[in-house]
Amino acid sequence: MRLSEAGELRLVDLLKRRFVKNARGVVLGIGDDSAVIRPRLKNMLLTTDMMVEGVHFDLGWITPFQLGYKLVSVNVSDIYAMGGHPEFMLLDFAAPGYFKQEQFDSLLKGIETALKTYKLSLIGGDISAAERLILSATVTGHTAKILRRSGANIGDFIYVTGNLGDSACGLEVLKRIGRTVMIEKNEKIDFGPGRKTVGPLVRRHLMPVARDPQRFSRRATAMIDISDGLFIDLSRLCKESGVGANIYAGKIPISEELRRTSEYLSLSPLDLAVGGGEDYELLFTAPSDIKIDAFCIGEITGGQLRVIDQKGKNKKINIKGYRHFAL
Amino acid sequence: MRLSEAGELRLVDLLKRRFVKNARGVVLGIGDDSAVIRPRLKNMLLTTDMMVEGVHFDLGWITPFQLGYKLVSVNVSDIYAMGGHPEFMLLDFAAPGYFKQEQFDSLLKGIETALKTYKLSLIGGDISAAERLILSATVTGHTAKILRRSGANIGDFIYVTGNLGDSACGLEVLKRIGRTVMIEKNEKIDFGPGRKTVGPLVRRHLMPVARDPQRFSRRATAMIDISDGLFIDLSRLCKESGVGANIYAGKIPISEELRRTSEYLSLSPLDLAVGGGEDYELLFTAPSDIKIDAFCIGEITGGQLRVIDQKGKNKKINIKGYRHFAL
Repeated sequence: MRLSEAGELRLVDLLKRRFVKNARGVVLGIGDDSAVIRPRLKNMLLTTDMMVEGVHFDLGWITPFQLGYKLVSVNVSDIYAMGGHPEFMLLDFAAPGYFKQEQFDSLLKGIETALKTYKLSLIGGDISAAERLILSATVTGHTAKILRRSGANIGDFIYVTGNLGDSACGLEVLKRIGRTVMIEKNEKIDFGPGRKTVGPLVRRHLMPVARDPQRFSRRATAMIDISDGLFIDLSRLCKESGVGANIYAGKIPISEELRRTSEYLSLSPLDLAVGGGEDYELLFTAPSDIKIDAFCIGEITGGQLRVIDQKGKNKKINIKGYRHFAL
Repeated sequence: MRLSEAGELRLVDLLKRRFVKNARGVVLGIGDDSAVIRPRLKNMLLTTDMMVEGVHFDLGWITPFQLGYKLVSVNVSDIYAMGGHPEFMLLDFAAPGYFKQEQFDSLLKGIETALKTYKLSLIGGDISAAERLILSATVTGHTAKILRRSGANIGDFIYVTGNLGDSACGLEVLKRIGRTVMIEKNEKIDFGPGRKTVGPLVRRHLMPVARDPQRFSRRATAMIDISDGLFIDLSRLCKESGVGANIYAGKIPISEELRRTSEYLSLSPLDLAVGGGEDYELLFTAPSDIKIDAFCIGEITGGQLRVIDQKGKNKKINIKGYRHFAL
């Protein structure tokens, strides 16, 4: 059945049935003019992120399930990047009339799966029509300590929580195979260097898992999530902190899967790692005298943003070249 | 300058400059991964509403200023409909590259004007690209007493806070004149029954003002805002309350402007009043023995939804006929 036949009221009923659980702190969930919660006596975090068909995704290579999962991860990542714990979510959903009820169901299943991963409750939203699929979510969270972008100090070390570039390379693979891959059902990918190599990259792009900063948040001085690419997001953190940075190219964590696949695709793994977005790893700074269990990739300076290659040559980082996303 | 030249970072800077005020309860506003607030020790309300070009509006007859104003009103109306006080707002903005910086500025001015009207602070959001203009806002509020849709009791009287149908008729006028009208700059409208008659209808459509329910909220038993039309929204309230209603057609408040203009357009003022959406008046119920300073249009029953015309003839309300908005 197409959504144009189902109608708005029925979709809201469907949402109410699926998501009305009596989660802690929820006074009133989906179905009234507003949701009602009992906020905690802490700092409350609020973030929102929109995903638009044709701009942020292509249904030719992402399934509704994956899209739902990713929407939640992307928003949770912003809560994590403040050192917070995600708690509630509102969903804005707009779709063309030909979008099928099965696709809507599968999108909701993806959202539900991610909500469970992050222990988050869907409490409200808005459903409407559009010419293209549009998703937007607002996620709330709470935290005792706020980790801003602006807290980095000269001399701090710079860390990332995991491999970079995998998501961008996964996207390149998807563009080349030109179809959806049901990774959530363990579908194998017959491409280039083989399924075991390519699979994790594609998964990282389609169903990224946001990084919980719990282990680092007490010690970190500044934090941001890497959504638009290492260099762009580093430049944001440095701008807010009023500092510069030296990044050691050789220390940027690059997966074996990325090395092999980028070689097959004749792409530079380093370019993908510093310029590719959507890895949703965390980038943070911490005092240099503290032991941190993450990848140290450089240090905060009083100068510019510079990258130092493995031969010791150092070059100014020009983020314009990496600004792949401009309105 | 077009937004594609301005770029995302610059737009965020523009937002920060315009909206960073140290509003009460804001720990961190626009510019980090999430906004941070100190919530009040009350019920917290959360609502979101999306407006998509080509579906909810047409830039051929609404200016960016009016659109910004309306976006805020529409969301605030959902907070008011719960008996609440609006407090904070997040904005999702997506636009095509050819959208001009002047248009963006004017949209922000419209938002700012509405924020002042409702004493609300913009604390965060997301900016991205899209093929069409897409706006979504999330508004938070607080309230001691929650006014749900589900509290109506048999015997309660049914009230509306103002004239219905004006917005729908204003839209009909705009479609016929086929251009924008700068009502915010008191531009006159040379159409049919004359500017004094047509102006208020067009204003009601382009820059609706949400109704603060303060005067009624202590006494009301159930409340909803009229966004999709009287009969649709009444049916929602009745469904949630498990009741029926008798509506007296002759008691529905219809403005003199609507009577004259609908006559000129050969439209039925009553059809516009019961089926037309976007008036953003409140629809509520209250015990019959309490004096309420609003328009009483009927009473809650244990039966169906029925409308009684001025000759005393009574007819079942078929909301399907009024469901103008289906996905």
